[in-house]
Amino acid sequence: MAVSTSTLDLTTMRSRLDRLRAEASRAGVAALVVAPGSDLRYLTGIGGSSFERLTALVVPTDEAAAPVFVSPALEYAGLGHVPLEDLGVEVRTWVDGEDPYALALGGVPSGRVAVSDLLPALHLLRLRDAGAADQQLAGPVLRELRMRKDDAELAELRSAGAAIDRVHARVGEWLRAGRTEAEVAADIAAAIVEEGHALAEFVIVGSGPNGASPHHSVSDRVIERGDLVVVDIGGPLPSGYNSDSTRTYAVDAPREPDVASAYAALRAAQQAAVAAVRPGATCQDVDRAARAVLADAGLAEHFIHRTGHGIGLDVHEEPYVVEGNDLPLEPGMTFSIEPGVYLSARWGARIEDIVAVTDDGVERFNARPTDLVVQ
Amino acid sequence: MAVSTSTLDLTTMRSRLDRLRAEASRAGVAALVVAPGSDLRYLTGIGGSSFERLTALVVPTDEAAAPVFVSPALEYAGLGHVPLEDLGVEVRTWVDGEDPYALALGGVPSGRVAVSDLLPALHLLRLRDAGAADQQLAGPVLRELRMRKDDAELAELRSAGAAIDRVHARVGEWLRAGRTEAEVAADIAAAIVEEGHALAEFVIVGSGPNGASPHHSVSDRVIERGDLVVVDIGGPLPSGYNSDSTRTYAVDAPREPDVASAYAALRAAQQAAVAAVRPGATCQDVDRAARAVLADAGLAEHFIHRTGHGIGLDVHEEPYVVEGNDLPLEPGMTFSIEPGVYLSARWGARIEDIVAVTDDGVERFNARPTDLVVQ
Repeated sequence: MAVSTSTLDLTTMRSRLDRLRAEASRAGVAALVVAPGSDLRYLTGIGGSSFERLTALVVPTDEAAAPVFVSPALEYAGLGHVPLEDLGVEVRTWVDGEDPYALALGGVPSGRVAVSDLLPALHLLRLRDAGAADQQLAGPVLRELRMRKDDAELAELRSAGAAIDRVHARVGEWLRAGRTEAEVAADIAAAIVEEGHALAEFVIVGSGPNGASPHHSVSDRVIERGDLVVVDIGGPLPSGYNSDSTRTYAVDAPREPDVASAYAALRAAQQAAVAAVRPGATCQDVDRAARAVLADAGLAEHFIHRTGHGIGLDVHEEPYVVEGNDLPLEPGMTFSIEPGVYLSARWGARIEDIVAVTDDGVERFNARPTDLVVQ
Repeated sequence: MAVSTSTLDLTTMRSRLDRLRAEASRAGVAALVVAPGSDLRYLTGIGGSSFERLTALVVPTDEAAAPVFVSPALEYAGLGHVPLEDLGVEVRTWVDGEDPYALALGGVPSGRVAVSDLLPALHLLRLRDAGAADQQLAGPVLRELRMRKDDAELAELRSAGAAIDRVHARVGEWLRAGRTEAEVAADIAAAIVEEGHALAEFVIVGSGPNGASPHHSVSDRVIERGDLVVVDIGGPLPSGYNSDSTRTYAVDAPREPDVASAYAALRAAQQAAVAAVRPGATCQDVDRAARAVLADAGLAEHFIHRTGHGIGLDVHEEPYVVEGNDLPLEPGMTFSIEPGVYLSARWGARIEDIVAVTDDGVERFNARPTDLVVQ
């Protein structure tokens, strides 16, 4: 179990717990069960993950009942110095042979239980069998808190953006014809850590025809002169907040004749979507702003994914910038704007920045130029 | 999503699928839902994991109904060249906006559904709402297959043991007074990869009093002359099969006066447990063999965890070598033998080898000497 020391202060933790209970009450649930992962980290600062043995925070919606933190005794000491007791949380440790599910539910009012999206079946079905049979997902409750970032969270995401910008600024050191995607990716991964990330969570290097597949990761393909190369990279800072930024590079002049006009349209689409971000606009307004520019350029069918995803303690979280999502934007929401064009089996390009909704518009957390970088 | 190309041949995959259906039928379930993770890798060779979008293998117990593999269209190409169609599996890809849960269950006979232990709540509760409401864990069904290794699996675990042995043989290069546990651990992690592992999944360096906490990972404690240092390390080979081995090192002559006699008892306990492994002995017999030796030496209360855990595609899996587990050992079962002694806040020691049950006894997959290594 990877662990971390909490960077949250007690006031923040208290306020998040209070808001969680208010949202849970609105959702008609009696208690929440929060497993290790970003939800638990958001509420308590406790990071890491545990699979085999149950670790969970159980929060009754009724404030008269104390929250309970259940942890294997052997792992509890390693969780760092999170002042759970000062938060009014009752800590219950257990050893092999004891029943952690009964322990987790003891004294918790019965009723509908919301479980965090990551809780594995192993624990979910045993909680069901221990009495918490009326189960629903806690995601909709937690997203009401997590998708509006406070100033400290915005500062972390701003730092993450600057850190990944420093990596993109160095891509020319490693990207050249004759090297494989995997070799370039290994150098980029090292730089992601050097520039302040806790780890290089993802490194996509999609060259030539591989760039036309948005979910391509890396391969042993040797990069050739004339290739476009999609470089989509990021990871968490030590605080857990993530970077995620894409730039497209050209290794010498592009081989394909249709690159220049399509890339110009892509760049305009990305700028139009960023410009559409303001309080009161909806997520789908932003998606449509990008899509309209590409449609005007005859490229509608080559933009085959949503425009963006929320980002914070998870790389992908609410809100999603996609047709059909009429959620109005509010200050503090943070998400990617990342249209792409994909010419099947030939080439692809994508431009991705993280942005935040401000009181009167938008702030970009990535500052690298968006033009095609010719190496 | 990290992915890998399958290393399984079609015959092996077919045979595992057939045995899975037979076990599922015995367990009275109508279908299994297997999420990405080691269960899916065992059955199909498809590695990696996916959280946000549903990827799953659905296996109806009735052989008249075809297994279904559900995958996001964008991710399917990246799964490598697993010949799912040749296995009689129907591949159904989906795009954002479609309902993957209805897709997964379409044509699958209704009844009790067993879900793999790792399936997250996000998917489990949506499968429930899509009609698969009678749910149980698939772990007991899958463990009947996975805990008996075939020859190819045993060969992989033997290679993994040799690889981690090569790392232990080099610990003297890095372990010395004046360095922190974290510095030593970073060097060991690099060597784990150099010696053939896909990644250094865990590196425990527990020096002095930290060695007395079995779940200590690493810290910034500076190693001192006279310390005992517990080094518990391992990770997966590219095939996914894991190593896991512990040796205890002394940095110069041990400071604590009770080390020599206690360590001698620990070594005898570990040897006694290895010697107790044979077909027909039970898991708890092996645990008792180690515990008896330590009890005779007056150290019973200082051995505070089970004797071992199964190992394969997971570092911890069935069978568990623990009091109360009367499962009889069979040829092909593989597990750790890792007694320890922990003198609270002073020092600790542990010796861990991976062993396999053979037709007439035991094979050790780790060959490093078990005496206290004085650097």
